[in-house]
Amino acid sequence: MRRLLLTLEYDGTDFSGWQVQPEGRTVQGALEEAVRRTTGEQVRVCGAGRTDAGVHAEGQTAHFDTESDLDPERMRGALNHYLPADASVLDCRRVAADFDAQRRATSKLYRYRILISGPRRPLRERYVLRRWQPLDIRKMAECAALLEGEHDFTSFASEHATVQSCVRRILRSELVESGDELHYFIEGEGFLYNMVRIIVGTLIEVGRGYMDPGEFADALAARDRTAAGPTAAARGLTLVCVRYPDDPRERD
Amino acid sequence: MRRLLLTLEYDGTDFSGWQVQPEGRTVQGALEEAVRRTTGEQVRVCGAGRTDAGVHAEGQTAHFDTESDLDPERMRGALNHYLPADASVLDCRRVAADFDAQRRATSKLYRYRILISGPRRPLRERYVLRRWQPLDIRKMAECAALLEGEHDFTSFASEHATVQSCVRRILRSELVESGDELHYFIEGEGFLYNMVRIIVGTLIEVGRGYMDPGEFADALAARDRTAAGPTAAARGLTLVCVRYPDDPRERD
Repeated sequence: MRRLLLTLEYDGTDFSGWQVQPEGRTVQGALEEAVRRTTGEQVRVCGAGRTDAGVHAEGQTAHFDTESDLDPERMRGALNHYLPADASVLDCRRVAADFDAQRRATSKLYRYRILISGPRRPLRERYVLRRWQPLDIRKMAECAALLEGEHDFTSFASEHATVQSCVRRILRSELVESGDELHYFIEGEGFLYNMVRIIVGTLIEVGRGYMDPGEFADALAARDRTAAGPTAAARGLTLVCVRYPDDPRERD
Repeated sequence: MRRLLLTLEYDGTDFSGWQVQPEGRTVQGALEEAVRRTTGEQVRVCGAGRTDAGVHAEGQTAHFDTESDLDPERMRGALNHYLPADASVLDCRRVAADFDAQRRATSKLYRYRILISGPRRPLRERYVLRRWQPLDIRKMAECAALLEGEHDFTSFASEHATVQSCVRRILRSELVESGDELHYFIEGEGFLYNMVRIIVGTLIEVGRGYMDPGEFADALAARDRTAAGPTAAARGLTLVCVRYPDDPRERD
């Protein structure tokens, strides 16, 4: 039995998210089907993060166990042969039998793209949230920076979250201008359900002048979902990469 | 009667190109239908360039005449309301009655994106040509530079071209590295049918070592389509912008 680590890119637009569901097309389901068609095995593919419906990934990771002795690079090719066009295995390599793609991760980096444009932009619409109003970028950046460090993110978690503690350590929370887009980067050890999208929705409230940085800090302190802004659309969000100590992908 | 100039963005993937055809979904057809639904008029929308099926645009331009006295910014909104999601009017403004979007243009700038990646990349696949082989970028850039100036581009024109002269003046022909992509920029007063895609197909032959820069120069001099490489896929190509002297979009 061997354990393989996959690095994945997918366009989340037409997936009902990562996690297998009774109904709906999921990335996990597509991968498990690709493994079944490649090896004949019915496996569980365990992802580092369960991205929501519509959320994209440039560097999702996942592991699974197989009896197959197929060379990992050939396994990558075979999985891609069976995967639909909107998902792809970028890398496949053998890891230790106790390497867990989710538990071993030290952090995940997400990027949220906001495009400032009145008219719709067909070439980018799948991958950005478009806002036509001017945004106060300086104030948004100031609020973004407040989130670095360890905080109780209850205010920025969906009421549907079912975790015991909402305390999370954020390593990076930064707003970067990139041409006519704003890119919000957030890296953390773990995230609550909808947390990045609620943070972005609240930063946009700040950008539009509906909330000032003092109120943003109060909203964080309130530990109350209703104190924060709306949940921003999934399509602007991309899981950029998952980091591991002594990353097996940096060996060879 | 007023003449309006449109600046357009579209995702060419699902269009059978710019030009109206008896069968097939075209950008020109979609625009003319949007004008009809907005103003009740059956007009001809005249584009600066007739992009092929699958070719994208970030800054195509087109003009049309209307009896409507709708404010141009409202016209823009109305056209976008009736256009499909993969096309958008970015700008609409009144121009002189003799302003012709095609004939008045001094140059058009195209960009062709080549992505170097073995596995497919779902987030970019619609907009790039993907090559898994390593490419000799230095040699490709050297050949690209050979095309600047005035040349007879018969070798780089589809046999289906029906123009009298294949001489064209190229203002810029440059290969630029951009992360894991190569971007080929070409700006010229005019282009022959499939010219940019045949140039790119031939540059890739050079990059793969099937042709050296001397042979590339010979292929240009040969004035024979069979001397050049294959026609690269449409999806990597984008019409970036159309330039005008005293550009009406740069006023006010």
